[in-house]
Order: sequence, then C-alpha cells, then structure tokens
Amino acid sequence: MRTAGRSRAECEALDTQDPLAFARTRFALPEGLIYLDGNSLGAMPLAVSQRLRDATDLEWAQGLIRSWNEAHWYTAPQRAASKIARLIGADPDEVIVADSTSVNLFKLLTAAAQAQRERDPARTVVLTERGNFPTDSYLNASVADLLDMELVRVDAHELPQAIWTHRARLAVLQLTHVDYKSGRIHDMAGLTTHAQMHGAQVLWDLAHTAGAMPVALDALRVDFAVGCGYKYLNGGPGAPAFAYVARRHLATLKQPLVGWHGHARPFAFEEDWQPAAGIERLLCGTAPQLSLLALETALDAFDGVDLDLLRAKSMALTSIFIEQLESAAAFEADDGLALASPRVAQERGSQVALRHPQAYAIVQALIDRGVIGDFREPDLMRFGFAPLYVRHVDAFDAARALHEVMQGRTWDQARYAQRRTVT
Amino acid sequence: MRTAGRSRAECEALDTQDPLAFARTRFALPEGLIYLDGNSLGAMPLAVSQRLRDATDLEWAQGLIRSWNEAHWYTAPQRAASKIARLIGADPDEVIVADSTSVNLFKLLTAAAQAQRERDPARTVVLTERGNFPTDSYLNASVADLLDMELVRVDAHELPQAIWTHRARLAVLQLTHVDYKSGRIHDMAGLTTHAQMHGAQVLWDLAHTAGAMPVALDALRVDFAVGCGYKYLNGGPGAPAFAYVARRHLATLKQPLVGWHGHARPFAFEEDWQPAAGIERLLCGTAPQLSLLALETALDAFDGVDLDLLRAKSMALTSIFIEQLESAAAFEADDGLALASPRVAQERGSQVALRHPQAYAIVQALIDRGVIGDFREPDLMRFGFAPLYVRHVDAFDAARALHEVMQGRTWDQARYAQRRTVT
Repeated sequence: MRTAGRSRAECEALDTQDPLAFARTRFALPEGLIYLDGNSLGAMPLAVSQRLRDATDLEWAQGLIRSWNEAHWYTAPQRAASKIARLIGADPDEVIVADSTSVNLFKLLTAAAQAQRERDPARTVVLTERGNFPTDSYLNASVADLLDMELVRVDAHELPQAIWTHRARLAVLQLTHVDYKSGRIHDMAGLTTHAQMHGAQVLWDLAHTAGAMPVALDALRVDFAVGCGYKYLNGGPGAPAFAYVARRHLATLKQPLVGWHGHARPFAFEEDWQPAAGIERLLCGTAPQLSLLALETALDAFDGVDLDLLRAKSMALTSIFIEQLESAAAFEADDGLALASPRVAQERGSQVALRHPQAYAIVQALIDRGVIGDFREPDLMRFGFAPLYVRHVDAFDAARALHEVMQGRTWDQARYAQRRTVT
Repeated sequence: MRTAGRSRAECEALDTQDPLAFARTRFALPEGLIYLDGNSLGAMPLAVSQRLRDATDLEWAQGLIRSWNEAHWYTAPQRAASKIARLIGADPDEVIVADSTSVNLFKLLTAAAQAQRERDPARTVVLTERGNFPTDSYLNASVADLLDMELVRVDAHELPQAIWTHRARLAVLQLTHVDYKSGRIHDMAGLTTHAQMHGAQVLWDLAHTAGAMPVALDALRVDFAVGCGYKYLNGGPGAPAFAYVARRHLATLKQPLVGWHGHARPFAFEEDWQPAAGIERLLCGTAPQLSLLALETALDAFDGVDLDLLRAKSMALTSIFIEQLESAAAFEADDGLALASPRVAQERGSQVALRHPQAYAIVQALIDRGVIGDFREPDLMRFGFAPLYVRHVDAFDAARALHEVMQGRTWDQARYAQRRTVT
C-alpha cells in the first residue's frame, strides 16, 4: 500500500497550529537532535535541574533531617501520585509512587492472587500473554511459584479463549497495556470486563501508556495497575514507579512487602504490622527522594495538557512517520524492512516498531545522523514519539533520515559493538 | 557514677590531632550547627552537588538514553557496591546496591527461608528479637506468613537459649546488628557461629553499622546482610540500599523479586527467567539513577579512611558526650534523665540514646540551640555521632547544651506539635 503522506510544509503547519506546542518549551532538548526514545527514557523537563539543586544544596545540605518535614519530603509519594492520577483516570488516593514498576507488580500480583484464592480455593491460575515485558513474565512465574499457583501463558489473540477455558480457576489476568516491542494496544475495556465477568481480577502494566495517552482505570473498573516513571512521565533515569488500586480493594488489600512507611502509625514504631487505611499501605522502605522529587517536578510538564489532544498528536506523529516511509516505498523495497506495529493508529501506542535484519546497524547509523531510536534483539527498531516534545516535522525528518540510510546503505555493521540500553 | 570527663580544651586538642579530620572537609555542613542525626540522614558530601548537576544537565538532558552506556549508568549498582564492600568486610562481587533496605531484606529472607526448608523440610522457624526495627519485624512476620513458616520473637538476651531450643527447626536468624534505639551492638561473631552450628542461616541488618564501624562479614562467615545507604553512608534521603550474599550462596540463591536487570542475559529480553551468575541476580527493576549516583559519589568520602580509626573516633565521641553528662551529674538529678545506651563504648554503636519523660520537648529545645538529635516515641532522644564529620568539641558542646536545657528547663512542651521525621 502506498500513501501520499503529508509534505514537510504540512508538518510545519501542524506544528505551528499545535495546541500542545507550549509543552515542548518545558523540556531541555539537545540542539539538532531528533529524540525518539522517550519510550525508554523521557527527556528532561527544564524545571528538574533547579529542583534538584535546591534538593541537594538547600534541603539536604542545609535543612538536613528537618527537610522531611519542612521541605515536605515525607508527602512526595502522594503528591507525585496525585499528578499521575489524572493521566490514568484515577482518583489521587488510589495511586501511590513507590519503588520500581517491578517491585510494585510483585506487591499487587501477590496481593491479588492471594486474595482470590482465599475467596475461592479453586482460583489458582495466573493468566498472561507470551511476549509480555520480560520482568512481567518473570514475576508472573515467580509469584505463581511462590504461591504454588499455575501460570498460563498464551498468545495475545488467544486471551479471550483462555479466559473462557480457565474461567473457573482464573485468579488474576496480568497484561501490559501497550506492548513494549510492537506498540500494540490491548483492548483494556473488553479484556477487563471479560476476565472480571468470570471472577478474575485484572492487573495492568501501564509502562508504555501513562503520559502517552489517557486511560480510564476507574471508569473501566480496572482492579490494579502499575506503571513507570521514567518513560513518558519523564521522571529521570530509573525514576520511582506508581501503583494503582481501585478504591473497592483498598481496605482489604494485603501485600507482602510491608515496611514502616506503610504502617497505620509509622512514627509509633510498633512491633506488629497494621496497614495504613489507604493506598499508603503499598509503601515499604524510605523512597529515594532525589529521584522522587525529580519525578514530582517533571510531572508538571503535563500541566494544562489535554489528554485527548495528547493522544491525537501522538497518533498524528506515528502516522506521519509511517506514511512517509510508505510514500517512499520503503516497505516495498526488497531489503526486508517491515512494519512491526499496527498500521491503524488507534491500535498502536506512541511508538513505531520496524523489523530489519540489519536493525542494529541501522539504528546506529541513524544516531550518527542525530535521530535517536533504539534497538531490541534480534531485529527490531523502536521509535517513540513522545507527544509532549516531539514535533510533526521531527516525525517527517526521521522517516526521511531512515529512508536515506536504507537507500544509501550507509550503515556498516562491523563498526558497531553490541550496545546496551535500558528500556 | 560520676566521671571527670574531658575538658573542652582536651576535646579541641583531640580535633587538632584527629587523623580523620580531613574527612570533615568533604561535607557541606551548616555554619554553627551541631548535627547529631547522621544515624537518620547523613550529611551531604560536597562532591554530590556537582555530580548531580552533571547527571541532570549533561547526562540526562544532553546524553539522554545514550548515558546508560556512555555515562556508565548501567554499572553504577556494582560501582557503589564495591565501595561499600570495603566498609563491611566483603569482596566487591558479594555486594550489590539496589532498591531499599526493606525490599532487599524481603529478597534475602525469602531466599534463605525457602532454601533452608528445601534442604530440610523441618526447618520452618524464623527467629528474631523483640524490638527489632519495625520494618524488619513486619517483614519477618510477612515472609513467615507467605511461606507458611513460624516466626519466633524473643528478647535479645534470650537469643542464645532460643537458638538452642529451636535448633532442629531453625531456618533463619534475622537480627539488626546495632539497635536503632539504644545503639546496643549484637555479638555478630557469637550469634552467627551459634546459629550456624545448629544449621541456621543468619541475615544481618547493618542499617546503623555500615559507615560507622567496620564489620567483617566474610571473616565471620555471615550468610546474608542488608544495609542502608542514607545513614552513615551519606547517600542522600532515601538513597538505595545494599545487599550482601556470601560467595558460597551466590550460585544457588533464588529470590522472588526477579526482574530483567537480574537476568543472565538482560538484553536478550528472554521470556523465561535465568538468574545472572553472580550478585546481579538480586537486581530487579531499573535503579533510581539520580539517587544512586548521589550515593556512589558520597561513598568517596570514605576514601583513605582507616576503619579502625573511624571506630576509635566514634567511641571517643559517644564517650565524651556521656562523660560530660555524667560530670555534670545529669543522670543523678531527680528529673528522670537516663542513659538508654550501653555505658561501655565497645558495646554501643555510633549513637547515644537517652530517656526522659519530656524527651520530645527537650529535643526541640536543643534544635532551637543548634543541636540536632532526634526523638522516638515515647520518651527517647537519639544523638548520632557520625565520625566522618562530627568533632570532639561537638560532642562536648552538645552535652553542655543538653545540660543547660535540662537545668534551665527551657523547653516548653506546649509549643511543639507532634513532629514527624524519618529514621
């Protein structure tokens, strides 16, 4: 299929009219670089730099221990969470920022699985999909093993059937909303309803969702969710993650990573555990404040950003990139380039994945040209279009650069040693 | 008992001759403040400020995703760990920095308990002491509950007897080396040997140990340990924590918080879990880099610091403080002030705890006079003497200030609302 694609002038016009253009001015972006890896590490909001300087030179160095109160460090997990709540369709008191996505996934998966089995001893199946993000896969298996439950993995298209097949024994359905490789979006509404109809609880990983598109956790009656602070939320490398618990589960939620920050009376230093009344029961040890304060400040980059406009821009960006490659007949050339993301914008997140046998070398050649995407074994290129700061012309220019690299075969596989990056 | 105590001039002389005096110049310390809460939040090493500025403005903002390789973010957990290894008598490859103390405790306690029961199904007892740090208490109970094992809690002096009583069923002995309230030091050598002789494994929490005094984990054949990055290691508020696994356990250690950073081939993104060969199997999600890099840099404050001298100075500081109170007859006055730490320096860590019915108000009055300690419910004052940056005259002056507050009864309970601080 060959589409005309928008011209560069049309893309420039889209940027001029972009109702979210103001958001880009909130970011530090290197001159001349097209950054398409915000799905791995979001760009730095300018305000973070000064915030961290204050956090170190004033609050830590001068305020010392007093800053837990006077600089309000103690309530940073709740403050950051309340900013995330709007982005995922939750109430502030259903969300908390803590630990990593992985650790939060462990907490909620264990909590849900145990509660389900307590309710009905037959419910011992954790269902997930093949190709889930590796940590999710590992944790699903680990928790099933720890609780002596059964892990069932099926391909994505088999999920509805698997829910039906295991309906009497289904405890938890755990899925990642937007696939980290292809960017394919799961039908959150349909799968949640279907699984719940058969008595299961549903735990969504929003790592590639939050900050890139709206989701409506409360409206869809999702049970649990976790997500990442350093991708589309731009919280900085390894920023703390978030966890969501639907209000109806809060009072009974029992998770195993208990620590004094999650106690009903943390400063009484009591010997026996009693969980905080609300979402704070998910807190465990002391949060890494410098990273947490960076995230809290970074989230202000979403101030005044309409999430429907954000999603519309995201779809426009990925569409421009794909259409430009199509108009250059990039997928028709006989060199193995293939689209690995859904062709329909509504079905993909804020990234475009391409396959090519020389994917690694191509990504390197693009980096040399100032276009940063990333590579995933064995043959995948990922290009993330963070709609807060990527422009329409960037999508256009990136596709052009890719096409030129492909045509000129300017990559040279031998030059590049194996590189390591972090998703 | 009334001791003469050293004069202020003698304390000044000790500072002049202090072979560790160079270390204090590495810290940012507010003018005119005597900071005795390094057992709760260590002071900021000066180098951290610039390191974080580089981490944000250059590495994150400019380097973006490339900094995982080019700024060597990816290996920061190992680098920070190798600096901690020297402080706790371990080899660098037996230590890793990750998550919080609490989360690491959960990993290692679960790993040890499960391995012990696999070896011998009768071994289902986790033994700890009453008054352990609350998170340790909660996690001991939580893990025992999760694994359907039994938690036994006894008073500290009953531990040897309890080891004997439960010897056939003992799986894990979990203790905190230096008590967070009294500062009392456990006999690590004796308790470790005793428990191991009866087939148990031993997991030490070094939260109030690491950076304040040397310990010899390898030499004492300790099995597992965890510790805190933000107290005497000065890594910043909520800094990531460390975990130690004796080499002999590394190859078989199986812990439940599995994530892709702990995989044998993290960048292959494989569906099934295979642990890294070494200590990296304790890694889970992506580390909070800003907090981690702060810790890594902060640890350089220990460069060239002889740990025996560090311990000697620590004992001198706490002794000066106690002796000065004794020479002022502070404990004899009929107002209820009592020493809550061991009187013998060798038996206490780097802090002095005092009891008084008006402890909260006294701590506040001291803060008003520029002496920062902290309060713990219901009647405890803690004064931490971080030997890297606290001077002998500080210990002298702090005792004098306390005595003056007590004599003048200058505190006023009604003035102070309940305050919250973080241990």
